[in-house]
Parts: sequence; C-alpha cells; structure tokens
Amino acid sequence: MARHEYDRERFIPIPEEILEIYSTWRPTPLVRAKRLERVLNTPARIYYKNEAVSPPGSHKANAAIAQAYYAKSQGIKRLVTSTTAGQWGSALAFACTFFDLECTVYMPRVNCQQKPYRKNLIESWGGQVHPSPSEHTDIGRKMISEDPNNMGTMATAKSEALDDVLSDDDSRNAVGSIMNFVLATQTVIGEEAKTQLAEDYNDYPDLVVGCVGGGSNFSGIAWPFFRDMVEKKTEMDFLGVESTAAPRLTMGEYLYDHADTSRRSPLFKMYTIGHSFVPPPIHTGGLRVHGSAPSLSIMVKEGIVRPIAYNQVEVFEAASLFSRTEGILTAPETAHAIRGVIDEAKKCKESGEKKVILFNHCGHGLLDLESYVEYNAGRIQENNADPIKVRQAIQHIKDLYPWINK
Amino acid sequence: MARHEYDRERFIPIPEEILEIYSTWRPTPLVRAKRLERVLNTPARIYYKNEAVSPPGSHKANAAIAQAYYAKSQGIKRLVTSTTAGQWGSALAFACTFFDLECTVYMPRVNCQQKPYRKNLIESWGGQVHPSPSEHTDIGRKMISEDPNNMGTMATAKSEALDDVLSDDDSRNAVGSIMNFVLATQTVIGEEAKTQLAEDYNDYPDLVVGCVGGGSNFSGIAWPFFRDMVEKKTEMDFLGVESTAAPRLTMGEYLYDHADTSRRSPLFKMYTIGHSFVPPPIHTGGLRVHGSAPSLSIMVKEGIVRPIAYNQVEVFEAASLFSRTEGILTAPETAHAIRGVIDEAKKCKESGEKKVILFNHCGHGLLDLESYVEYNAGRIQENNADPIKVRQAIQHIKDLYPWINK
Repeated sequence: MARHEYDRERFIPIPEEILEIYSTWRPTPLVRAKRLERVLNTPARIYYKNEAVSPPGSHKANAAIAQAYYAKSQGIKRLVTSTTAGQWGSALAFACTFFDLECTVYMPRVNCQQKPYRKNLIESWGGQVHPSPSEHTDIGRKMISEDPNNMGTMATAKSEALDDVLSDDDSRNAVGSIMNFVLATQTVIGEEAKTQLAEDYNDYPDLVVGCVGGGSNFSGIAWPFFRDMVEKKTEMDFLGVESTAAPRLTMGEYLYDHADTSRRSPLFKMYTIGHSFVPPPIHTGGLRVHGSAPSLSIMVKEGIVRPIAYNQVEVFEAASLFSRTEGILTAPETAHAIRGVIDEAKKCKESGEKKVILFNHCGHGLLDLESYVEYNAGRIQENNADPIKVRQAIQHIKDLYPWINK
Repeated sequence: MARHEYDRERFIPIPEEILEIYSTWRPTPLVRAKRLERVLNTPARIYYKNEAVSPPGSHKANAAIAQAYYAKSQGIKRLVTSTTAGQWGSALAFACTFFDLECTVYMPRVNCQQKPYRKNLIESWGGQVHPSPSEHTDIGRKMISEDPNNMGTMATAKSEALDDVLSDDDSRNAVGSIMNFVLATQTVIGEEAKTQLAEDYNDYPDLVVGCVGGGSNFSGIAWPFFRDMVEKKTEMDFLGVESTAAPRLTMGEYLYDHADTSRRSPLFKMYTIGHSFVPPPIHTGGLRVHGSAPSLSIMVKEGIVRPIAYNQVEVFEAASLFSRTEGILTAPETAHAIRGVIDEAKKCKESGEKKVILFNHCGHGLLDLESYVEYNAGRIQENNADPIKVRQAIQHIKDLYPWINK
C-alpha cells in the first residue's frame, strides 16, 4: 500500500482475488432519483450511486477488502484500526473474514454508546472492539487519567490504534481515509458510475456531490470525473458537503497538521480545524474529523471542489425527504450530500437549468435508527462548532509548527 | 389482487410503474458461495440469490410494492397489516411512501421489544406501529383484558389488523405471505435467478432451498423451477426449512385452519400446528407462524417439497459460519435455509455428488444484531415447540370443524 501511496501510474490494476469479492455486491446500482426530482419540481436530473448495498453497508468495504488482501499477501497476521461511526471498523472486520486476519478496532466511547449495533456488527465478524480511550494502550490510560469522562474522538481512537500496532510486529495499521492509496481504491465507485451513466442512461454529470469527512467517498466518486476534466477539458463542478460541527473546508485553514491527537502521524498539508479541536457530538461520526485528505484539500484550495457545510437539523430534513421519496433510509453522513443535492436542484428550478447531478449514496442508516427516532421526536440540535474554539485550535498548530505554518 | 388470487394465467405482466421501482435494487445479485464451499470442502456448487439488498432489507419489498401499487390504483387511502419480525411491516411502509398511502402496522409486543429497530424503521418511513395486542381495536382490548401480559403472536396482530380494516372503508388489508397473489409477486426472485445462473454461470440447480414461514420467499425462488420441472420434466429437489419452534410442515397436519387467532380469515387447507398454538419465543419472528401457504402445503403433501426443521442453536451456528465465510450477516430466518444448505453440502462431501444448490438469501440481519450478541454470549436456547401442546392445538381445530377436518 505504501507503494501505491506514491505511485505515479494513472491506473492500478485490481487483483483478481479482490475483484472476486467485489463481484458479490458490485457493480452497485446507479439509480435516477425520479421521485425526488418530482417532489422538488426541478428540471435537474439527479442520479445516485448506491454504495449502501455492500454487506457492511457502505463504500468503506472497497478499501477494506484491498487493505486486507495486501496485508495477507505480506504475511501480516492482524489489522488494527480506528473507527468513529463504525462504518470503517465494520468494513474492516468484514474484510478480515475473507483473509483469516485478526481485526482490532478502537472506537470512540461516544460512538460505541451511540451506535452499539456497529460495535456488535464488528464483533459478529470476529473483530475485537476497544471503546476509546481504553485501558488497552499507554496513550489510552494517559487520556483516562487526565479525564475519566473523555468520550473520545476519531483522533483519540487513531492514537490508540497507532500505539497498539507499534508494539506488535505482526500487526499493521489499516486506514479508512485520508491517504492516497485509500482514496484510490474508492475510485471504483466513480469509474462504475461513469460507465453506468453512459450505458444505462446515455448521460454525463455536470455536478458531482459527496459528503466529506476524511474524503474517501467523495474522492471515490469525484476523481474519475476530475480525470475527464483534465484529459478531455470538460467543464465540471464538484461539491463537497461537510458538517458545521467539524467545518474543516469552510472554517479551517490549509496547514500542516497531524491526523491524530497524540501527534504521532506525519504532518499532512490539509484543511484542518486543528487536531486539538473536539467537535460537538453529532449523529454523524464519519464527518466528525478535524482534517480532510491532502489530495482533496488541494482541490478545494485550487477552487476545483466547492465546499459547503450544513448543520444537523438541515441534514436530517434532507434525509427524511429522501427516505420518503426514494425509499432509502440513508446514513446521516450521506444525508449531508443529499442536502447539498436538494439545494442545487432547487437552484436549477429557479434558473431553469437542466443540470445533471450525480451523488455518492455512500451508506445506509439502518444502524443509525436511534438518530432518526431523535429527529422524529424533535430532539435533534444544530450542534455547530464554536468558532472561537476552532480559531484557538488552529492557532495551536501554528504555534507548534511556526516554520511551516506561517 | 383478488383477481390475481384466482388467475389461471401462467404469467401476470408486471406493470411499468412497479418495474421502475424494482429497478432501483433489482436484479438482486446471484452469488456463488465459493468460500463456504471451500470451508465445507464440498464438491457441491452453492449459489445464493441475495434479496437482502432491497432498501427494507428483504424479499418482502417485492410483494409490498405490488400491493401498494394496486391499492393506489383502486383509490385506497390506507394499507393496514400485521408483521412479526418486522420485515413485512417495514417493506410495506417503504412501499407506501412511493404511492402516498398511509400505513398502519400491528406488530406483536414481543417483536416490538426484541426488534425495536424494525419498529423505528417503519416509523421512519411514516408508518404507524401498534404493539399487539393493543388498545386500538376491540379484539386487542379483549385479549388484553383476558391476559394483560399477552406478548402477542403473528395471529394476534393479524386479528387486530382485520378488526381495524373492517371499520374503515378507505382501508385495505395488506398481506405479506400465504395467499397466491403474494407468492406470485415473489416469483421475480426465481425467474431472475434462473436467467442469472444460465447467463453468468452456465449452470442450473439440482436442489432449491428456502426457509419457510408463511411461504413467500420459498415459493418466490422455487416456483419458477417447479414450472421447469412440470414443463420440461426435469428432475428437481426442493427443501423447505422451518423452525422447531413452529414445526408446521414436520409436526403439523394438513387440515383446514384459519390464518388468525380470532378465526375471521377464511379456512385454508394447509399444514398447521393450530391457530391456538403459541410458539415459544425465538429470534426468528418471520418463521413463528402456525400455518404455511396452501399452495406450498400441497407441494409438501405431494412430496415435491421436502420439509426439515432446525432449532435455534443449529441455525445460529450456520449463520455464524456464513457471516465468516461469505461476509454477510444474515437474518435468523434466512439462517434456517443456510443450515439446510450446509447439511446438504456435507452430504455431497460424503457421496462425492457435485450437486448444484441454490438458496434464497431472503434478508439481512443488520437489525437482528441483539440476537447475534445473545448467540455469541452463549445465551441462545433451542426453544422447541412442546409436542403435547401442538397435538392439543391440532385437536382443537379438528373439534371446531369436524366435517372437513376428519
């Protein structure tokens, strides 16, 4: 995978063994959201690529299978990782079953409590889950001694996973997002979508939309179209949708920062709100991260990808409309993309533009039903990030590394 | 739908509107279970049709969409139904969203408690759920007054649904199984499977396996192959797998009985353990029924379909093996079929027979995770039906209708 991280080839062939496993749920459906279009009364044509049909329920399965395959071929015995919403952790536990690998997952306490089903799912596939901070690692014990009520974030879980893996030669860290090699394995989504759009609908998108946490589902659908834009010089619009609880792209800065709170990861040049910033709790663990992938960040910096942020209430409104028009109970993460799509489709109604919008329906919400119960009961809050704390956390990384973060 | 119940045509065309909705998840994948074959070291080839990819997570979506469509076209405003595991109820709520129909679901209290997520899912699609027995109907109030701790069965829920619908002219009862017109809508599964097996694998089954509750998923996959058997005089073996908690086909009798406990439904000639028999609680609400479809029952009676019953422990063993080989967390209902498949594949290992086995993977277990937690903790019991009570319940229907049940 390290080789893939720096590979300069445009295409990396997918090994036969991976294709065989993919074939049990891929190609995923490419669907035109006709009823949503009708309800919005928009001239836009809306398509979605439904990654929710994978056995763990999201696009994360694509990257997990690839990493488990390469780990096995290198003689690794155990994969260790961190997960927030649990989509990545369950995808990795799923992938490890195919290659007889052990799987250890660190998951923030808050997410273990909010999404016990995801934890159970990981365990059903034979994975071991440690609610983070845990007593299982040095850094975890340190965090607990400093604050026994620390409910954890992706960053604390990531720190513990690193701690664990560094103490065991037969283990490797598996990564669900951020890195180029992870994002590359997700481009199967966009490549498939392009073929399906052409063959089944004779269509091509003007706008590609995805939600953005680390950036893997967004890049997975967007990159293959970005390639067309570069190669064929087509006009193309990209919209990355994040949460106002962790507004990296819209409120953060393009700086060098760590991916983890314990500052063990290399520094990445990316949009960040600072590794010390703790986003308010939201029902969208997958987007509750402080930084986005360097490769995606530079596309935002260059103005190729437009970022937008929505709060929880706006997002659940969109999810509710989608489930009642398209019949799919979507993941709260995915609902961010849907909210972006709806607003773009409404603009088309005003302008009369027959825009073709493609978005990545990256996961289902069947294991997020508590959050829908909360929403239906009117108990969902906006939970926006505090701008002052964001500014402080950004200043913190500038103070830490002044020579590269001017 | 009444017309379809007695239709003598071999094929009923699927309306365009239904096909359009089906196309969002159909055709469902037809997968060869290679890793399961390898672990079992069997010469058999095992294929499964994966109906779990539908948005509500099971084959029930097929019948629900059809009924909602026909209800809407007849000016009906509301569909009322009963559900046990919640697969049917959620499929109907899902279907009603496409046709702007109201949806009312009666669900046994025991299932509402065991599967709160299914209840939430129905509500997320705008359906209203009444835990049965409920205070919402005359028969419900009567049952509660007789036994305040009545936890309900499919039969009590069905009685309440009938009671509700009979008091409202704009409503109709939607039915998830048993009736010919329901089973007919499921044959899309077997028809697709036949085409996929031929085109993608150049293969044809010797044995078709499905779990059996009311009979809709089993008939859906089996009937199209039974047609070949009749028309082309091919040799064909069918295995119907039920639960030892509700052993209609293996311990029941072929008699006239009601589908509900309040004896309002017509009498059906079917395998039954008696409408007054209350199966022990199991994590498999969908198979916890006292009678199976007349059309399936007669195939059992004629020796065309072989029945077999497994207990809960045997079934979860199979589910666990399946999730760790094929990577799919299966519904406990579906796990019955898998247990049957595994045992047949083991027989092939002994005999050396290269049998081609096809089974219906009718639903996923993502909303049944509690039962997996119970199983992994060693807390799953066999919970077999008490043979004496079965005998008493059967005698009861013989005493009620002696002139037809000799």
